[in-house]
Amino acid sequence: MKHTEKIDDFIYETTYWTLFLNPDQYYLGRAVVVAKRKVKDLANLSNDEWLDFAKLIKKYESALRKAFGATMFNWTCLMNDAYKNNPPDPHVHWHVRPRYAKPAVFEGIEFEDREFGHHYARHTDCEVPTEILIKIIKQIQNNL
Amino acid sequence: MKHTEKIDDFIYETTYWTLFLNPDQYYLGRAVVVAKRKVKDLANLSNDEWLDFAKLIKKYESALRKAFGATMFNWTCLMNDAYKNNPPDPHVHWHVRPRYAKPAVFEGIEFEDREFGHHYARHTDCEVPTEILIKIIKQIQNNL
Repeated sequence: MKHTEKIDDFIYETTYWTLFLNPDQYYLGRAVVVAKRKVKDLANLSNDEWLDFAKLIKKYESALRKAFGATMFNWTCLMNDAYKNNPPDPHVHWHVRPRYAKPAVFEGIEFEDREFGHHYARHTDCEVPTEILIKIIKQIQNNL
Repeated sequence: MKHTEKIDDFIYETTYWTLFLNPDQYYLGRAVVVAKRKVKDLANLSNDEWLDFAKLIKKYESALRKAFGATMFNWTCLMNDAYKNNPPDPHVHWHVRPRYAKPAVFEGIEFEDREFGHHYARHTDCEVPTEILIKIIKQIQNNL
């Protein structure tokens, strides 16, 4: 989880989870939610961790609708990369991709969700300048 | 949700969720978990629905490890298709794809996860004969 080393992409934390902005902002507001505890599988989450995650979903979705007009959200827990290692070293985290029926415009940049209504695209690699990433984070935080 | 019309793909139900086998069995044991209540977004699930879902994850993952030797699992809540309609008509459901470090063999058929350690493949469309689907369901049920 390289996210823990980077301070700049921190958005928010709850008792059990930390939220980081994904540097790939093709889907504006795309983020990663990482369990604070070293937990390997969804099956090992506690009830408290689940309910805290549920609250975070509600909070993040609401913030993204207000901040950028997101329409809906794709949530995934995959953890495939951890199984490239031997032994595997999974650490529970979620990816959230806000999806947009209409292009979102932020700081003069248009973010267009060309696949809306379809599976998210992979290999999007839409890296925006650091100063814009920081403004995206601020805009989300102001709506949380 | 066409799943509600098909009886044959029913695997299991809990208080708040129903589990159906996906006809595409490229990832052996791939299934869909559908909320019984008409609920549009993860943000609208109740605490009871979340904790019931958490229990189902635990139960299903354990059953799949025993039934077929699954290594790990990809869980996704996407709901993109519902936004092809106007107005959109989302209904909360999850996809689970069991992933396999080594090919699984069931009823003489080899199920190979060629992307293990990577994002799941799309457009796999591995439809197996109905009698095999029924046996897959039975095998899962016997391990639940």
